[in-house]
Amino acid sequence: MKTIQCVGILTSGGDAPGMNAAIRAITRAAVYKGLKVKGIYRGYKGLVTGEIKEFKSEDVSNIIQMGGTILKTARCKEFKTEEGRKQAYENIQKEGIDALIVIGGDGSLSGARIFAQEYNLPCIGLPGTIDNDLFGTDITIGYDTALNTILDAVDKIRDTASSHERLFFVEVMGRDAGFLALNGAIAAGAEAAIIPEFSTKDDQLEALISRGFRKSKTSSIVLVAESELTGGAMHLAERVKNEYPQYDVRVTILGHLQRGGSPSANDRILASRLGVAAIDALMEGYHNVMIGIENDEVVYVPFRKAIKNDKPIKEELVQVLAELSI
Amino acid sequence: MKTIQCVGILTSGGDAPGMNAAIRAITRAAVYKGLKVKGIYRGYKGLVTGEIKEFKSEDVSNIIQMGGTILKTARCKEFKTEEGRKQAYENIQKEGIDALIVIGGDGSLSGARIFAQEYNLPCIGLPGTIDNDLFGTDITIGYDTALNTILDAVDKIRDTASSHERLFFVEVMGRDAGFLALNGAIAAGAEAAIIPEFSTKDDQLEALISRGFRKSKTSSIVLVAESELTGGAMHLAERVKNEYPQYDVRVTILGHLQRGGSPSANDRILASRLGVAAIDALMEGYHNVMIGIENDEVVYVPFRKAIKNDKPIKEELVQVLAELSI
Amino acid sequence: MKTIQCVGILTSGGDAPGMNAAIRAITRAAVYKGLKVKGIYRGYKGLVTGEIKEFKSEDVSNIIQMGGTILKTARCKEFKTEEGRKQAYENIQKEGIDALIVIGGDGSLSGARIFAQEYNLPCIGLPGTIDNDLFGTDITIGYDTALNTILDAVDKIRDTASSHERLFFVEVMGRDAGFLALNGAIAAGAEAAIIPEFSTKDDQLEALISRGFRKSKTSSIVLVAESELTGGAMHLAERVKNEYPQYDVRVTILGHLQRGGSPSANDRILASRLGVAAIDALMEGYHNVMIGIENDEVVYVPFRKAIKNDKPIKEELVQVLAELSI
Amino acid sequence: MKTIQCVGILTSGGDAPGMNAAIRAITRAAVYKGLKVKGIYRGYKGLVTGEIKEFKSEDVSNIIQMGGTILKTARCKEFKTEEGRKQAYENIQKEGIDALIVIGGDGSLSGARIFAQEYNLPCIGLPGTIDNDLFGTDITIGYDTALNTILDAVDKIRDTASSHERLFFVEVMGRDAGFLALNGAIAAGAEAAIIPEFSTKDDQLEALISRGFRKSKTSSIVLVAESELTGGAMHLAERVKNEYPQYDVRVTILGHLQRGGSPSANDRILASRLGVAAIDALMEGYHNVMIGIENDEVVYVPFRKAIKNDKPIKEELVQVLAELSI
Repeated sequence: MKTIQCVGILTSGGDAPGMNAAIRAITRAAVYKGLKVKGIYRGYKGLVTGEIKEFKSEDVSNIIQMGGTILKTARCKEFKTEEGRKQAYENIQKEGIDALIVIGGDGSLSGARIFAQEYNLPCIGLPGTIDNDLFGTDITIGYDTALNTILDAVDKIRDTASSHERLFFVEVMGRDAGFLALNGAIAAGAEAAIIPEFSTKDDQLEALISRGFRKSKTSSIVLVAESELTGGAMHLAERVKNEYPQYDVRVTILGHLQRGGSPSANDRILASRLGVAAIDALMEGYHNVMIGIENDEVVYVPFRKAIKNDKPIKEELVQVLAELSI
Repeated sequence: MKTIQCVGILTSGGDAPGMNAAIRAITRAAVYKGLKVKGIYRGYKGLVTGEIKEFKSEDVSNIIQMGGTILKTARCKEFKTEEGRKQAYENIQKEGIDALIVIGGDGSLSGARIFAQEYNLPCIGLPGTIDNDLFGTDITIGYDTALNTILDAVDKIRDTASSHERLFFVEVMGRDAGFLALNGAIAAGAEAAIIPEFSTKDDQLEALISRGFRKSKTSSIVLVAESELTGGAMHLAERVKNEYPQYDVRVTILGHLQRGGSPSANDRILASRLGVAAIDALMEGYHNVMIGIENDEVVYVPFRKAIKNDKPIKEELVQVLAELSI
Repeated sequence: MKTIQCVGILTSGGDAPGMNAAIRAITRAAVYKGLKVKGIYRGYKGLVTGEIKEFKSEDVSNIIQMGGTILKTARCKEFKTEEGRKQAYENIQKEGIDALIVIGGDGSLSGARIFAQEYNLPCIGLPGTIDNDLFGTDITIGYDTALNTILDAVDKIRDTASSHERLFFVEVMGRDAGFLALNGAIAAGAEAAIIPEFSTKDDQLEALISRGFRKSKTSSIVLVAESELTGGAMHLAERVKNEYPQYDVRVTILGHLQRGGSPSANDRILASRLGVAAIDALMEGYHNVMIGIENDEVVYVPFRKAIKNDKPIKEELVQVLAELSI
Repeated sequence: MKTIQCVGILTSGGDAPGMNAAIRAITRAAVYKGLKVKGIYRGYKGLVTGEIKEFKSEDVSNIIQMGGTILKTARCKEFKTEEGRKQAYENIQKEGIDALIVIGGDGSLSGARIFAQEYNLPCIGLPGTIDNDLFGTDITIGYDTALNTILDAVDKIRDTASSHERLFFVEVMGRDAGFLALNGAIAAGAEAAIIPEFSTKDDQLEALISRGFRKSKTSSIVLVAESELTGGAMHLAERVKNEYPQYDVRVTILGHLQRGGSPSANDRILASRLGVAAIDALMEGYHNVMIGIENDEVVYVPFRKAIKNDKPIKEELVQVLAELSI
């Protein structure tokens, strides 16, 4: 394989706080090691349309603290077609990019995997998603910030009048993974989490109601992982209101605010470590791996493993929530 | 009228951040001037049921920074009946309370007014509501904190991917008053506010759509004052999705998190000033007035004026939003 | 006077949160009214060196929430000389700037005043300083955010172990004005403020010590306005340690962190209103005035009045602190 | 050993955010498993003086989000004497406490170790210190919150005017351990960290100066771990000012504000897990161990190992900071 002299970076999928810290780390580590860096805008879309710009060290100054991603993200149907990827590869060649670093979630890494196979281009993935649902890394970029954002919201809700039989549903992200809802509930001292890993949401609600939510006299807060569509918590609230009119039910839907905000210390340090490691990996000849953290050490995870496997919820944490919400 | 020697305090209606700062200020100012203080729990309910406790200076230590109210609030149907108020007055006499200070919104001050008239009890009101909809005071306790909470949420939403034709609806409180939505929109740099002071919400939405939300290429954020029921923004989103499928619409419903949180500097200073002034007013023989701030000076507003009049939205601010969201 | 078609903007002196919101408002209001806008970098320095760039509406997108100033500030010795101002005026002419809007404090407005007189250039000032020490406006851009930053710091300090006779000095900004220290102390529930408006700092310390700081058993927190040099609180701490060894004294010096941070709702709304009003004022033919807010209405204050007069501390607030820190 | 039926809890040493979450978790897990709980106030002092109170599940409601510790901490000379410990043990017997759980740092666990040996009392330690300097656990309760507090401060400082050759020193805690300074510097995007693990602070400063702090044109931020006495950063600033007058040097000393604040999600989850595990450990017959987290699993670490060993700084992180501050 030829020596890598120029690295392209893109962010793809839903934003996650810390993506900018990762872009900064990749850029600076690359410059530090004598490589050129090219920023690709709007995810795979910019690869297809050629929206690409050289990045110097100063282009990533003062971005480590910013939410979102200066490279933007977008959906890109074209990249899902062979024709689109062909065009993307032509831009890769035109720009002299020798390797591609993709920051994103499951779908983004799948795209990188296919592209790498078709064109024999060294690709590295960085796990960037608030849902924390990538296998092979203990934690993903953005998860810690989103968790703290949820916490901040629930803390505020708990401040309000603690009357009998008031019930708050707080809908959080995590369509397919309950990490945010479960850990958010533990951290916020909430009464319960309704998450996709267990039985249906209606069944989980039924179980909560049948145990009377909570014995104590104050109000109860339940975190609900979002369903296919935003607003599922509204449906649960309707059910409770109809069947148990004695409950005063209130709903908060956090929505996209969970994707924003200045990244936490953890997310910035994680992103910085993974960004530096991505360049090291490329220089050592690794490719088609996701860079992760396991047991506080950098690890390389083949794309297929990171994408195919589900990351399980820790039983210990389910028990912690159960014991502490008595 | 007999000399006042013991003051009762209660908080009523929806919580507002800064209520604790007001409780602290009233208690300490009263103690400073040699009065006794009694805390009444759960609003008028505690008056009816006799849930009343003496407060010393140290009982209000370390609460100035807390959201919610250590006195709790609750709805109280009994106090709306003559029988209930009779029972309340008996507790007032039993506890030796000579004057009552009520912290709350419109409804809470109406209750105080009736009670004061029926039993000739000196009552003082403090404007405590995040909605800022009390006449006779430039600002109410809790409003500034709620505004900053909304701002923080919208800032996070703006961080996320700025793609074409993405539309965010953020539902905020203010059923009858658009202060939070309008000022929140200005402060957050949002595109528009849909508020109750103007035409129907559907009409305001239509107007926004017809002007294309915004000419620029980034996403648009619209703050929506809540309707009778939480979730009205969800209805607006459905309408846009059905009629204008090209828009990618997302909804956040802030709900009760706007009532919580550590109070801002402004709310704490306001609550401290009003609390001190409430005791001064009582000592000078004033009663049945709300203590407000106008032009940065403490003012006394008769209950009937504070309750009956609507506080208007400043035209200047509507214009500021219009000019700055181009 | 000729019609104004192009407006120059600069920020000068110490940064204040909300300066970006003001830059955005001026730019957008100007564009809305058909004017051209030029951003001048590094305060008066950029005027002298010609570091000037045209600003479009999109150049100020997504900056309302940022601390600091995208135009930067710097000290500029050259502008204090006639030669420097001559060069500045040549750049003004070269760029076709018809009027200048300066955002800054006392010193910055003095510069604008002299420049306006010498070259008959319409100048408008916006009060931008965290110290709140400009006469003619109830509040300056940046003050509310700095106050909340101080509050946040003191809240954290109060969380820590409340043991007998522990004494915390927190040094805050405000060399010549005690607004931040006094109002910060009220808002934070601190025991006292040592401010420049009263006797010497050593005398104020002596008075505090002689009254035993506070009767209660918990620790005491004293806010100290900074002296000529940062670190004056360290000197007070040394004095207490030497003379009263029973006190366990700790010092926090907030320093420049008070100048940063995302602006509060109040600061953003204030900056937005003042920015819009600045353009209105120019179009109506006003010049050599500072735009302020008094009693929640926009006012025009002649430069000489804003600069020459001192803004007094409200006696009521000194009393509020005294009563509530018992 | 007799069956454990009643558990005593105390917090000792400097406060750490998350201590309340640990108290809550221990109390609730104990109640859940049928044990009695007694809260001991002011650390070992309350053990000696008998300031002890039974804790029910509701006594720990609504404290998970609070900084500080509801049990207070204090220094206690008496407990360092045999006589003092004898009195402490008498109180233990009088209260019917069968096991003691101590939340604190190095010194606090040393106290527990001696006490456990002398009186054959089952003791469990929980690592509670913002310094993160306990061996045998990847992370200590309070560290993550303190790191984010530092970050927040440095972010604000970076907002301010970025002029040439301005140098900010930010003094952070960590007398004997550079975790906060080093990781804070990485997370904040600072230029350097001066920490106790390396050469003397003066030497580290010399090295920074000789490499010109940073090549780029913006200001430099250096995090400095505190020395024996608060204010060491002031000394470094003086040195730079004297020897290199071209630098405009500013100092921030964070001090005790790093110990306060609402705990982060991480700290609350950690404290909750460790608290539940502490009760499990006692029920399984473990004693004289610190409960830690290693590789995201709960571990039991004998006191002597936790106390005696130093936790090393990761070389990888030193390199990350070096590469990214170019």
